[in-house]
Amino acid sequence: MRAAVLGATGYTGLVLLRLLAEHPQVDDIIPVSSSQPGEAVDSVDPGLSPAIAAKLRSTGGKFVAVEEAGRIATGSGIDVVFSALPHVKSAEVCAPFLGKSVVVDLSADFRFADPAVFETVYGHAHPRPELLKQAVYGLAEWHTERIRKMDIIANTGCYPTATLLPLLPLARAGLVDGLVVANAISGVSGAGKKERLDLLYCERTENAGAYNPGRSHRHAPEIEGELKAARPSLSLLFTPHLAPLKRGMCVTTVVRLAKDPPAEGSGSIGEVLRAAYGGRPFIRLTGSRVPQTRDVWGSNRCDIGWQREGDHLMLFSAIDNLVKGASGQAVQNMNLRFGLDEAAGLPRHGQV
Amino acid sequence: MRAAVLGATGYTGLVLLRLLAEHPQVDDIIPVSSSQPGEAVDSVDPGLSPAIAAKLRSTGGKFVAVEEAGRIATGSGIDVVFSALPHVKSAEVCAPFLGKSVVVDLSADFRFADPAVFETVYGHAHPRPELLKQAVYGLAEWHTERIRKMDIIANTGCYPTATLLPLLPLARAGLVDGLVVANAISGVSGAGKKERLDLLYCERTENAGAYNPGRSHRHAPEIEGELKAARPSLSLLFTPHLAPLKRGMCVTTVVRLAKDPPAEGSGSIGEVLRAAYGGRPFIRLTGSRVPQTRDVWGSNRCDIGWQREGDHLMLFSAIDNLVKGASGQAVQNMNLRFGLDEAAGLPRHGQV
Amino acid sequence: MRAAVLGATGYTGLVLLRLLAEHPQVDDIIPVSSSQPGEAVDSVDPGLSPAIAAKLRSTGGKFVAVEEAGRIATGSGIDVVFSALPHVKSAEVCAPFLGKSVVVDLSADFRFADPAVFETVYGHAHPRPELLKQAVYGLAEWHTERIRKMDIIANTGCYPTATLLPLLPLARAGLVDGLVVANAISGVSGAGKKERLDLLYCERTENAGAYNPGRSHRHAPEIEGELKAARPSLSLLFTPHLAPLKRGMCVTTVVRLAKDPPAEGSGSIGEVLRAAYGGRPFIRLTGSRVPQTRDVWGSNRCDIGWQREGDHLMLFSAIDNLVKGASGQAVQNMNLRFGLDEAAGLPRHGQV
Amino acid sequence: MRAAVLGATGYTGLVLLRLLAEHPQVDDIIPVSSSQPGEAVDSVDPGLSPAIAAKLRSTGGKFVAVEEAGRIATGSGIDVVFSALPHVKSAEVCAPFLGKSVVVDLSADFRFADPAVFETVYGHAHPRPELLKQAVYGLAEWHTERIRKMDIIANTGCYPTATLLPLLPLARAGLVDGLVVANAISGVSGAGKKERLDLLYCERTENAGAYNPGRSHRHAPEIEGELKAARPSLSLLFTPHLAPLKRGMCVTTVVRLAKDPPAEGSGSIGEVLRAAYGGRPFIRLTGSRVPQTRDVWGSNRCDIGWQREGDHLMLFSAIDNLVKGASGQAVQNMNLRFGLDEAAGLPRHGQV
Repeated sequence: MRAAVLGATGYTGLVLLRLLAEHPQVDDIIPVSSSQPGEAVDSVDPGLSPAIAAKLRSTGGKFVAVEEAGRIATGSGIDVVFSALPHVKSAEVCAPFLGKSVVVDLSADFRFADPAVFETVYGHAHPRPELLKQAVYGLAEWHTERIRKMDIIANTGCYPTATLLPLLPLARAGLVDGLVVANAISGVSGAGKKERLDLLYCERTENAGAYNPGRSHRHAPEIEGELKAARPSLSLLFTPHLAPLKRGMCVTTVVRLAKDPPAEGSGSIGEVLRAAYGGRPFIRLTGSRVPQTRDVWGSNRCDIGWQREGDHLMLFSAIDNLVKGASGQAVQNMNLRFGLDEAAGLPRHGQV
Repeated sequence: MRAAVLGATGYTGLVLLRLLAEHPQVDDIIPVSSSQPGEAVDSVDPGLSPAIAAKLRSTGGKFVAVEEAGRIATGSGIDVVFSALPHVKSAEVCAPFLGKSVVVDLSADFRFADPAVFETVYGHAHPRPELLKQAVYGLAEWHTERIRKMDIIANTGCYPTATLLPLLPLARAGLVDGLVVANAISGVSGAGKKERLDLLYCERTENAGAYNPGRSHRHAPEIEGELKAARPSLSLLFTPHLAPLKRGMCVTTVVRLAKDPPAEGSGSIGEVLRAAYGGRPFIRLTGSRVPQTRDVWGSNRCDIGWQREGDHLMLFSAIDNLVKGASGQAVQNMNLRFGLDEAAGLPRHGQV
Repeated sequence: MRAAVLGATGYTGLVLLRLLAEHPQVDDIIPVSSSQPGEAVDSVDPGLSPAIAAKLRSTGGKFVAVEEAGRIATGSGIDVVFSALPHVKSAEVCAPFLGKSVVVDLSADFRFADPAVFETVYGHAHPRPELLKQAVYGLAEWHTERIRKMDIIANTGCYPTATLLPLLPLARAGLVDGLVVANAISGVSGAGKKERLDLLYCERTENAGAYNPGRSHRHAPEIEGELKAARPSLSLLFTPHLAPLKRGMCVTTVVRLAKDPPAEGSGSIGEVLRAAYGGRPFIRLTGSRVPQTRDVWGSNRCDIGWQREGDHLMLFSAIDNLVKGASGQAVQNMNLRFGLDEAAGLPRHGQV
Repeated sequence: MRAAVLGATGYTGLVLLRLLAEHPQVDDIIPVSSSQPGEAVDSVDPGLSPAIAAKLRSTGGKFVAVEEAGRIATGSGIDVVFSALPHVKSAEVCAPFLGKSVVVDLSADFRFADPAVFETVYGHAHPRPELLKQAVYGLAEWHTERIRKMDIIANTGCYPTATLLPLLPLARAGLVDGLVVANAISGVSGAGKKERLDLLYCERTENAGAYNPGRSHRHAPEIEGELKAARPSLSLLFTPHLAPLKRGMCVTTVVRLAKDPPAEGSGSIGEVLRAAYGGRPFIRLTGSRVPQTRDVWGSNRCDIGWQREGDHLMLFSAIDNLVKGASGQAVQNMNLRFGLDEAAGLPRHGQV
């Protein structure tokens, strides 16, 4: 398989290069960068081994401009295009590849079926509303069957992935009701590789706190939309926090247990979660043990724990925001879409 | 004034030594350590300047055993005894000083008026139940008048301080109702200076997550008790989290706004908070700006922000767990008790 | 006293504001910022307590442009102007204050007596060579007597301060010879508050290494110049390293012991250091115990240890790069210049 | 292949489990722990995916006592035993496996050919001096041919690996002379997973400094021994430093260039290094670019840079202390010993 990575010099792009470099079915990678075309990949990122050159043969080990990727797609073909570009720009740059390549888009551009919602949340008219019908929301364990068929996969981001995975099976089973209060702690890499004062080492170390709380956060409507699709009575109050982590995300969720759960969903919390995720390689159910972000650092796992407190339920989830919350899930979606082993090329263990 | 510090080699003890060393009214400090009596204070803790010796004249610059502190109390007298000892032990060691010295106890021993509650929460019969009637709960901004008079001040710890300060005025004014969902993020120093694997650098860096969630955390009953005293209809679901911070704590709280707030509390959230804390030197109301732990790092401040979300209220608070959450509030309580300027000797600015 | 701070929104400027806010002899501070004039100081930096306003009365609690500071200097007068501006710009902006105010310049502009050396090292002609004769190199413990008299104090930076303080007395005493190999580890705040990718949290955490090694580092000629002034036979190989610290600097130095030390310097290493620094409040000699950066975090101290290894000597020093390596030493120099207690308003203890 | 890991619950043991779990030629792992036999591996270390159980079939997914590993070795056989036990204990526990299994020992027990040196350095008589003749010093790129043949591989530790790899080819070529001044910065995991106060998060964050400087560090004689074997005129002054890193090590080395390099070694520094390491998968020569620890985080690489300064040479090297400095090199040595691809199962890229 041949894969292109657009926006390859950001954190998610650089993680994608590593994952694809070790992927058993990918043998050619086209690294695209508008800012550094012509530069050798392993000199821009000295973390990459020069050995990656063996999989960069189409570009001679260098970043190329998107036009060059377009020529390759038209010529010998590109199977899958990963886009780690900013929203609005991503849809526009990806559009010409459709019909030739499957697009896995890590931006927000294809996450809402309704372009009006996109415009409300992102303050910009959707750049390519006609493409939305080709897209599936790329939460790999949840929309699995549609992901296998669609040509645009709107890869789910870190906050929605970590928040939705524990909730959705319980919502669909009718076990929870009312207001979902979800508090997330994120590592700093979630904000990307940008020249911003508030992302400096000296601003983030020994510092933690909430930001954009409640409905003001961009991901709240996206998460609430998926929740309501599974159970319309649910609503959401979501608050993200930054802490001095490079990578890692955990979410603590409080929700009321339904008073009259429907017969079909009458299993226990654990049974419902096991029924939803049994056999899936990247979900680990930890029961009453609360998962920690280090457990999943560097892996594509989402670990999920839970605890009843009277008539409320507490849910705990942990992911690596750059892997299961971005680049790892993107490769997982590629695996599903191309009929490969879902876990191919993806790390299962958290780093010590 | 002469002050003794029991348990002076732990983190709260070492912060107390620094604060007292710079306090304008304290001119003699008795540092007590059962593990290192006879050791020079500035060699055990090389962070201390040798200049502290000028205020350690009674002990020749050295840690002493508690018996020596007892002799000094009986002889020339000790005005105030700070205890940073573990619970159960603290009450026992402090008891003989009563009648001679004011006791500011940083342990949990005098925080519950009812010894049965102590026994339930800490799994140990209260060591000195007869002393409880002499004690006041040491939340400096809340029980100020009683703190000025009592001889045992049960210094409020970090989680209750950061959680209660934003909530109590609103609870008393009848503005909030029902279940309080409070999520706290704490720095690692809150767990003390102990030889525990889970507190190692390599276990805590790049790691975050909840622990002892819900009612299983020791401080939940203490916080809920104070909340119910202000407004009986409130209940609490409290979840602490650890993050890779040495010092710092922030709390994000969600609570429902009361449907029919009483006329007397009919002010806005901001008005009620300003009425409660106006003129107090260590409360900073930040309005819709969310306080971050670095803002208060090293200071005795509690910064408080808030935001309405439909019929719910979000509250945000940040403290330094070792200062306002422990040693700084202890000195503030001493200041109140001895009629000094409440802010004497206490840092107001967070460190860059 | 009235003090102005130019470049008050960078890290050294913000530390200066804190130190001056607590200084017993300074009762008015003029905070100058070209980027944020008119902004309230405690809203730009939420770490500052609103209480600082009491010392910002001339500017109504706000940052002002430098022109306003100039008017105040001409009118009611400014005793001391601290400049935390970049090199070249600093000399130009400070020049008009001379004759009215003492200037403590934290940039490199007045550190070399010879403008040609400045031009070689900084690649820019010296902007005000005629002022150099009014300047003294502001290493507080070394040029103390001249600092008391001069009107421009070229405040010594972090690398030279930490490297020179252990070496200079031994060099002057003739105890060491030949090539000095000095390796420094610096906290990230030493690079300032700049929108640079290489200073992002995610780039610096879990990352350490040397940069600009050997003679390519700007501070090497400055350090070597002072060493040669004390003992011409010395030369220097200096290598700075970055590590994931916000604040802190340590230097490990290896140098050969002189074969024939002159009679006047025939004391032991410890005796020579004690003779040089005895009674100075911010030098702590630790003997064979190696100082660590945390020992001095937040303090104005430089801790110095040493160890003989055959015919070589190892020296170890630690400072807080923002305090003794920048703003603290600047206030110390102000204290010396104005005949105050050298230690007035300066922190002596490292933070826990 | 079947591999046993002794001391599997420490940091190096847990990294070994991860590496072996992904190794293409290892299909059975025996995890040995004297402290937690009978415990499920993935519950003791929640970072491990439950999927590791497929390679833990001999022990049912659990840690076993060493006696059980001995029974398996005697019965169906164990190809390779990795020992992450403490020194002295390691040799004793490994001895019974010899003759049945190849031993890769990560302790110091087999690193000195002369037991008297071991006794001097470690203060304990060598527990099994008769075995030393079967051992090879396990610096994979240096003693490659002997590693292919010997039954005890004394895996080289982090400080010697990072210090020796840049120096040895230059020493052998006669290009450097005299005193080698090597300064290393290490991550905290190098000290192991031990209940020690000085390894607590709060003791190590925002803290850096040297420890055991000069000849007092245990690894100095080991490094100097290898240097002198390559060029007898060399001597060493080695100083390790701790910095707030979990993983990572860099070494900055200063040494004098030989005045009369022999004709056979007359190539440039770069030529000699390329001749020594060309084709080796885990050495990256970076020329004048100084490698940083993050470049190699999580990988088995050693990156090496260099710079001339007059008649001196500066060398810069970076490794991950837990991988190339411990467990990764151990697997590399296993690969060499069993005729596998040297790079099999080993990570080449540093983590983002």
